Amino acid sequence: MQSLKQHFQVPYSYEVFFTERLFAPENRVFADFVQNFGNPSFRKKILFVLDKGITDIQTELTAEIVNYFQHHSPADLAPEILVLPGGEVCKNDPRFYEEVIRALDEHGIDRHSFVACIGGGAFLDMAGYAAAISHRGVKFIRIPTTVLSQNDSGVGVKNSVNYLGKKNFLGTFAPPVAVFNDYSFLESLGERDWRSGIAEAVKVSLIKDISFFTWLESTADAMNQRDKSVMIEQIYRCASLHMQHIASGDPFELGSARPLDFGHWAAHKLEYLSDFKIRHGEAVAIGIALDSVYSHLIGHLTKEDVDRIIHLLKKLGFAIFHPALAENDKINLTNGLNEFREHLGGQLTITLLEQVGKGVEVHEMDFDLIKKSVDYLEQIA
Amino acid sequence: MQSLKQHFQVPYSYEVFFTERLFAPENRVFADFVQNFGNPSFRKKILFVLDKGITDIQTELTAEIVNYFQHHSPADLAPEILVLPGGEVCKNDPRFYEEVIRALDEHGIDRHSFVACIGGGAFLDMAGYAAAISHRGVKFIRIPTTVLSQNDSGVGVKNSVNYLGKKNFLGTFAPPVAVFNDYSFLESLGERDWRSGIAEAVKVSLIKDISFFTWLESTADAMNQRDKSVMIEQIYRCASLHMQHIASGDPFELGSARPLDFGHWAAHKLEYLSDFKIRHGEAVAIGIALDSVYSHLIGHLTKEDVDRIIHLLKKLGFAIFHPALAENDKINLTNGLNEFREHLGGQLTITLLEQVGKGVEVHEMDFDLIKKSVDYLEQIA
Ligand SMILES: NC(=O)c1ccc[n+]([C@@H]2O[C@H](COP(=O)([O-])OP(=O)(O)OC[C@H]3O[C@@H](n4cnc5c(N)ncnc54)[C@H](O)[C@@H]3O)[C@@H](O)[C@H]2O)c1
Ligand SMILES: NC(=O)c1ccc[n+]([C@@H]2O[C@H](COP(=O)([O-])OP(=O)(O)OC[C@H]3O[C@@H](n4cnc5c(N)ncnc54)[C@H](O)[C@@H]3O)[C@@H](O)[C@H]2O)c1
Ligand SMILES: [Zn+2]
Ligand SMILES: [Zn+2]
Repeated sequence: MQSLKQHFQVPYSYEVFFTERLFAPENRVFADFVQNFGNPSFRKKILFVLDKGITDIQTELTAEIVNYFQHHSPADLAPEILVLPGGEVCKNDPRFYEEVIRALDEHGIDRHSFVACIGGGAFLDMAGYAAAISHRGVKFIRIPTTVLSQNDSGVGVKNSVNYLGKKNFLGTFAPPVAVFNDYSFLESLGERDWRSGIAEAVKVSLIKDISFFTWLESTADAMNQRDKSVMIEQIYRCASLHMQHIASGDPFELGSARPLDFGHWAAHKLEYLSDFKIRHGEAVAIGIALDSVYSHLIGHLTKEDVDRIIHLLKKLGFAIFHPALAENDKINLTNGLNEFREHLGGQLTITLLEQVGKGVEVHEMDFDLIKKSVDYLEQIA
Repeated sequence: MQSLKQHFQVPYSYEVFFTERLFAPENRVFADFVQNFGNPSFRKKILFVLDKGITDIQTELTAEIVNYFQHHSPADLAPEILVLPGGEVCKNDPRFYEEVIRALDEHGIDRHSFVACIGGGAFLDMAGYAAAISHRGVKFIRIPTTVLSQNDSGVGVKNSVNYLGKKNFLGTFAPPVAVFNDYSFLESLGERDWRSGIAEAVKVSLIKDISFFTWLESTADAMNQRDKSVMIEQIYRCASLHMQHIASGDPFELGSARPLDFGHWAAHKLEYLSDFKIRHGEAVAIGIALDSVYSHLIGHLTKEDVDRIIHLLKKLGFAIFHPALAENDKINLTNGLNEFREHLGGQLTITLLEQVGKGVEVHEMDFDLIKKSVDYLEQIA
């Protein structure tokens, strides 16, 4: 009678649908999913939560949803459609996730009902957190509306809000039950948000898939010209690589490695130093540039490969340097590494590049070489 | 390019250790676990969070822990040992879990560090929630100090706090990394908390294991006399049955069935109606009596079996009736069933008894027969 050992596995499945005009009356993708999920003969409830950044532009979205549910009626639509501000602000103030919880309680959303969320990565993170902690998790449907949320954050398994002044301090691992990537939402994106998410595609291509990197080189001009089919293919391939990584590795990050965070340690610090004026993807582009130069300096990456990476980032319109990197660099960059380690926990683990398409893990970084990389980027910026 | 399908499994393991005087210098169980967890060469941090209900009685507990860590030093002990009130009150006010989060942030507890929590079921639920949502889950060690938390809640996978006036409204599924069931904590329990948790053993024996039920009949007198070895065996067997059920079934309750909630629909309502003056286990005993009589009335259980169950509950010192059951019974009991369905979500699913040792699921309950069961219990109480 010394001890009892427990062991079990919890299976998760979800599908990412690619579609357009999700709530056009003739588009059955969403209705079919909701109708057939779980026990099809059991009538479900659904609550919609919308990013004001979108409803301000697509003013008829709420009416379209109501109309769609009148037409198809795959579930009981909650009489309230909640609209809240999007962007980082919605993760900073607990009022917003509390408002989502208030609404889902008021409309009787239980563990077998849905919260469907339409918005950017920040908004999905916030509403996903509210859904995950209510009744120990109500079913969450993501409808991402930015490039970054369609190709990266929206197809993953995390949610979060900021707390005690710390980015993503509160959150859970909670896969959605479905994701609907609707290209038509992207049409209203401003130039910066259109571009920003492409940095995540560059990132994942560099650590996982050289052919995707080559494809990004060949399509960069078309992407800048907002070519629809190129953007759709980019999102599909990037989402697919992220999803494969999650499924093959350590989905809930029980270990210390986080290769999908290539370029992210400096990016997180930069977002913070710029008071979140710099977009996540913009910061990631600079982080990629920095860690690529560093990878070269420690002898992993050839000079040609570094040039190729920087060339692609510039061609896509990204800045590869930010003045905040050079101010108080010793303190900021050292703190940045520490904070990254602390958030992940355990031993410092940074992914660098061995070659284009292949990452490599290191457990320490040398400050003088980081500084040299920063100086180099400043020169060629 | 229609859709991407995601599928993966997340493995969970933890061990429940049975021990005594956990922080006596000569007891290495805890130190060995902490030292060897994960990467043994990596120095971890640990924060202790203690239920004031225990430290009020075991006044030297904090000093013992400090002394233990000086002696063995398996990890860096946070300089603060947090003591907060236990019992349902700690789940009712967000200040308490926020205080746990404040402390774990202040002491740099990251995803590879531990929060060790010593307390009753309510306290573990509250601190476990704080740990689960911080950094998307820091490692949580449970040291349960009541019979109920040692034989049931502490070995399971759930945490929660109350919110919007609703019991367990916020919470997550988050298995601990280890559980230490230390018998010596039970010595200071008052009579009601000593008895209360035994109701969960009766419950699980009725739905899963007739030989455990027979054993409970034969040891009831010894249990009443606070026989140590009998209590330890009861906890071990009960914990083991709960753990087996979790591992074999649906650990994170993705479906609607929850057989371990036999007797609980009425229990939850009674806890609420009595303003939580009645203990969880006391309410469960009444819920078991009610659903056993009901099972007989719908033809599942023989009269002899009902008598046997009621006899055991009485022998263990449980009340089998509460006046609140009879007041406004139509409204209260119907609401009770509805609230139970809502919290679980989906179709109403109630476990009743087919025979002693075997549960059966039903999807509706008849009010007149519930009323008849209540009346019967009132008569024989
Ligand atoms: N959960 C994860 O795994 C994960 C991964 C990466 C990033 N993130 C998070 O994602 C967030 C960044 O997300 P983002 O890049 O999507 O930006 P965002 O969500 O901050 O949105 C940027 C702005 O665009 C608006 N907007 C959204 N969709 C729009 C549309 N279709 N048309 C016009 N305006 C629109 C928003 O209201 C907001 O003001 C950060 O908080 C980051 O931490 C999360
Ligand atoms: N997470 C789950 O799966 C699960 C399952 C069942 C019940 N629960 C929850 O557990 C709670 C009930 O837990 P409980 O029955 O352990 O009671 P409790 O935690 O409410 O404790 C009762 C009282 O005993 C005190 N106490 C704790 N240990 C003591 C000790 N060793 N000596 C003296 N006093 C002590 C506490 O401070 C408290 O005042 C409820 O909130 C219930 O919802 C959770
Ligand atoms: Zn990113
Ligand atoms: Zn119980």
